[in-house]
Amino acid sequence: MSGLRKEENQGWPNNVGILALEVYFPSQYVDQSELEEFDSVSKGKYTIGLGQDKMGFCSDREDINSLCLTVVQRLMEKNNIDYTNIGRLEVGTETIIDKSKSVKTVLMQLFEKSGNTCIEGIDTTNACFGGTAALFNAVNWVESSSWDGRYALVVAGDIAVYATGNARCTGGAGAIAILIGPQAPIVFDRGCRATHMQHVYDFYKPNMESEYPVVDGKLSIQCYLHALDKCYDRLTQQLQTAGIMTSPRLLDNADAFIFHSPYCKLVQKSVARLMLNDFLRHPGSNCTDSYNGLETFRGVKLEDTYFNKEIETAFMTASKPVFTQKTKPSLLLANQVGNMYTPSVYGGLVSFLISRPIQEIAGCRCVLFSYGSGLASALYSLRITDDLSPLSSLTRLVKNISDVKSCLDRRKKVSPKDFDALMKLREQTHHKAPYSPVGDTDSLFPGTWYLMSVDEKFRRQYDRKPLHPPTEAGDNGVDSGAS
Amino acid sequence: MSGLRKEENQGWPNNVGILALEVYFPSQYVDQSELEEFDSVSKGKYTIGLGQDKMGFCSDREDINSLCLTVVQRLMEKNNIDYTNIGRLEVGTETIIDKSKSVKTVLMQLFEKSGNTCIEGIDTTNACFGGTAALFNAVNWVESSSWDGRYALVVAGDIAVYATGNARCTGGAGAIAILIGPQAPIVFDRGCRATHMQHVYDFYKPNMESEYPVVDGKLSIQCYLHALDKCYDRLTQQLQTAGIMTSPRLLDNADAFIFHSPYCKLVQKSVARLMLNDFLRHPGSNCTDSYNGLETFRGVKLEDTYFNKEIETAFMTASKPVFTQKTKPSLLLANQVGNMYTPSVYGGLVSFLISRPIQEIAGCRCVLFSYGSGLASALYSLRITDDLSPLSSLTRLVKNISDVKSCLDRRKKVSPKDFDALMKLREQTHHKAPYSPVGDTDSLFPGTWYLMSVDEKFRRQYDRKPLHPPTEAGDNGVDSGAS
Repeated sequence: MSGLRKEENQGWPNNVGILALEVYFPSQYVDQSELEEFDSVSKGKYTIGLGQDKMGFCSDREDINSLCLTVVQRLMEKNNIDYTNIGRLEVGTETIIDKSKSVKTVLMQLFEKSGNTCIEGIDTTNACFGGTAALFNAVNWVESSSWDGRYALVVAGDIAVYATGNARCTGGAGAIAILIGPQAPIVFDRGCRATHMQHVYDFYKPNMESEYPVVDGKLSIQCYLHALDKCYDRLTQQLQTAGIMTSPRLLDNADAFIFHSPYCKLVQKSVARLMLNDFLRHPGSNCTDSYNGLETFRGVKLEDTYFNKEIETAFMTASKPVFTQKTKPSLLLANQVGNMYTPSVYGGLVSFLISRPIQEIAGCRCVLFSYGSGLASALYSLRITDDLSPLSSLTRLVKNISDVKSCLDRRKKVSPKDFDALMKLREQTHHKAPYSPVGDTDSLFPGTWYLMSVDEKFRRQYDRKPLHPPTEAGDNGVDSGAS
Repeated sequence: MSGLRKEENQGWPNNVGILALEVYFPSQYVDQSELEEFDSVSKGKYTIGLGQDKMGFCSDREDINSLCLTVVQRLMEKNNIDYTNIGRLEVGTETIIDKSKSVKTVLMQLFEKSGNTCIEGIDTTNACFGGTAALFNAVNWVESSSWDGRYALVVAGDIAVYATGNARCTGGAGAIAILIGPQAPIVFDRGCRATHMQHVYDFYKPNMESEYPVVDGKLSIQCYLHALDKCYDRLTQQLQTAGIMTSPRLLDNADAFIFHSPYCKLVQKSVARLMLNDFLRHPGSNCTDSYNGLETFRGVKLEDTYFNKEIETAFMTASKPVFTQKTKPSLLLANQVGNMYTPSVYGGLVSFLISRPIQEIAGCRCVLFSYGSGLASALYSLRITDDLSPLSSLTRLVKNISDVKSCLDRRKKVSPKDFDALMKLREQTHHKAPYSPVGDTDSLFPGTWYLMSVDEKFRRQYDRKPLHPPTEAGDNGVDSGAS
């Protein structure tokens, strides 16, 4: 079955990891500098202060089901995978439009023609962590006795919207599908998966009628950084046990550090935070070169430093070269689409993979930090194959996401005023039944699923924009569609 | 670590399965025959027609968080497990009171003192299937390279309530905690796990403001039986491959058939359905004894028979001995508490385990059918150890749930009128903030967590009723608490 075969003996298959990736983001965005003006805030507050340039958003034509339908079908098409070859499908999301029926069951529509109904997995939820939980579950399945030799498909999708106010600019929307199996070009390092979970009300969605969260912004930043500290602690131990840690500093031990990105500036602070952890952990002289001028902070305690501006600035400055080299390349989608919630960190992975020639990606080790408020977090490590042959799985994986940049460029810019009107429309209608969406479908990318109608019993009907627009005589244009 | 040790070599540990179980159900119930009178329906409609005797329900003092807090802490206490020994905790529920923050994170409060925050797993949702998905995920984790030698804890919990009308009597509430690890007394048969998933709107909860579902009752029954047919097909193949199928009839191959129970009569119909599948599949003469009088149905097609009363009656009659012997014992909690949603089928397992002397449980094979509307379903097989030594894990497991019957008896009966008033109170207040619950806490079982308050930011505070009530001088009474 597509090169997969269950091993005869008990045990784990080799090189379990990511075989293919697919990203979907909305075809429209609002410009953050225009939004600054519209919101009457100081110039640069969103663009420089938060590090955000554009924000993708959905009209009433898209919901969590349509986003996931789109990204799954595109992954299957681009990779020529038969629907019978999927044995597990799990969705991570915090965009809940039904308290009982999972998005996974809606996706089963795509499998109907194939007759394949034997697909484990449902939906999993905790803020932005659902995609990572689904991913870990998929990897575990492939390593378990219940694996039947088929692929697992993980979908992370969300629509991140905020009430009018200073958090609105940190929205975003999108979905990412991740194909999991053995003999993968991006492999999970076994035993290198650190977890930290805790009860906290930093960001949550207790108002069931609203799409908007309740947020304690300051607490959430503290929780994010504290979770990173705890995971740092565990992952460095695990990497040592696994023999992967060749330098005592974590930042030396991987080529890319990729983060869940509520906004890009927090990610930059997180790299500084990792350096602070490395610094406090290893006073040894062999590590001091890049720590010039930091010795004054030698005695600080991690838990006292979450909002210490002096330390933050010092370590942001000291870690800037590392940030530029190992993290900034992963921020393309975060900067251009915004916070996609569950897909955010995987948008980081995609951005990294297309950030440079494939020769410079091959053989890299990536450390990923996934955070979901409430809270659930994990820091884990992936290794990219160094097989660069033209038919290698890495070549194919990267080729299939290489249209992300052109798709970003092909998006339609919407004025903050029209964006605001669309947000108001979502507020009023996102749980309405019956309802007929009014949003324009012309500007959707080819191959995008969209909401047709909600009937009086809340049942949702979807249609798909043709992948290849009808061509006129003499026109053989084929659109590669939304990436 | 508690007898668990990660095996040195790659591979799956032996006898992965259920090490301990704990059930929690509300301390109050409404009598179904009294409800028939109150609802002015024909006598016997709920009790005989649906097979339901009593229905547990919660006041505004209990929510999904409190139910799960209660059942987890009781499992840990009864089994003397240290909180550091849990490496995974996942909650299956469709009782959503926050679209983002998982119940799992709320449960992390119980682990705070131990300092154990390294616990994978979040929440998983698809109607009544969430508990089973969480269970499969837990088993996969123990078999994966990410297993660290600690236990996995699975929690299934729900509050099932319906709008006034003919479905209200099919409610229920409760939570079950399941401890998973190797060397278990109840073992998952490897490779014997059949799945059927499909997109359908049979039962769902699109009205986010309400606790009540939208239900297409007839469609849901058809979907349930169709899913059972599909799973039958796959499981029989898997059992054959595994060498477990010794008779061509599935009903001969296990000692207990345990079902998700929306109401007990549907479970009885499901046993008849399995017999219909066996009958249509195996015309061989060696199987015909119990098929006397059924030959007239030899040519029917499964898909034409969902609502064929003649066939239903004939196979209900023919399968009655099997039902009585192999399924009825598992319906105690379903009959006495009602539909607990995600815990329902595991309430069936608990009921079966305490239905007869342990000598008659040992060595049994159980087939379980889990169904969640929308839909997700699985049919799978468990084997109970035959080790009956006084210190055996089976002896301990059964002993720890042996108080279920006495707890059922100790519940407080509430009149349908008072029950109706409490349902109205829940309707008006279940998502309110700030809110101070008014429900009585006196009648809660010892050791029950309950809601203290919801503040203006929707943050929920809980307290626990003492496990051991303060004893007066000379009184050394110790309460065994809610099972």
